[in-house]
Amino acid sequence: MPEVYPINIPEIVAEVQGVFDRYEAALTANDVPVLEELFWNAPETTRYGVGENLYGSDEISTFRHARETGPFKRALMRTTITTYGRDFATANTEYQREGHERTGRETKTLLRTPDGWRIVSAHVSLLGETV
Amino acid sequence: MPEVYPINIPEIVAEVQGVFDRYEAALTANDVPVLEELFWNAPETTRYGVGENLYGSDEISTFRHARETGPFKRALMRTTITTYGRDFATANTEYQREGHERTGRETKTLLRTPDGWRIVSAHVSLLGETV
Repeated sequence: MPEVYPINIPEIVAEVQGVFDRYEAALTANDVPVLEELFWNAPETTRYGVGENLYGSDEISTFRHARETGPFKRALMRTTITTYGRDFATANTEYQREGHERTGRETKTLLRTPDGWRIVSAHVSLLGETV
Repeated sequence: MPEVYPINIPEIVAEVQGVFDRYEAALTANDVPVLEELFWNAPETTRYGVGENLYGSDEISTFRHARETGPFKRALMRTTITTYGRDFATANTEYQREGHERTGRETKTLLRTPDGWRIVSAHVSLLGETV
């Protein structure tokens, strides 16, 4: 009989919201050590960014360090966190970056590890024209 | 003590690969009933497409039925399935759609439900210029 995972246990949603907020603060401050900490340290971790496809936490870290980006501002417009049981979660958000026109979207999948919640897969893109 | 989830148990990866392949066949055949079946039937389900942000399985179904798309072909270039324990998975792939130039990326997060594996969150986009 498959296990049924309770959806959105309030205390678990609050935990994930805390991780989400910490990531967002680190991203906009370009706080690379925190960004690295929150991504799962594993070859299986993936991150599709607006302009790059990265496989494994090493590639993600290399990208972070090479990126010439300073702090920036973005507004989050619709954040949806869903938790499945106590150890799995997804976080989706739409964002508007200051000085940019197109809406962005960001998806994170999170897993509770012995070290805390970690992002195991992320996908960032700009809303485009349908093809 | 947090639970440690074994990564990529071969039989679980095989299960998810089967769901992934079934979804890909349904997508390229525009088999809407199968696409609807494989998305989790819940208001929490999300799908960011290339040109739309959809919230809840109802919005996703409405989009599927309204879409004027027939069968099409696309080649998958790098598919990475990762399973976390027995009931949670991510699937990432890069694709090249026939007749289109830009590379696409697709991320799915999957949960085992009493009805089988279901996509709880999806994100599809075209690789773009870094902004």
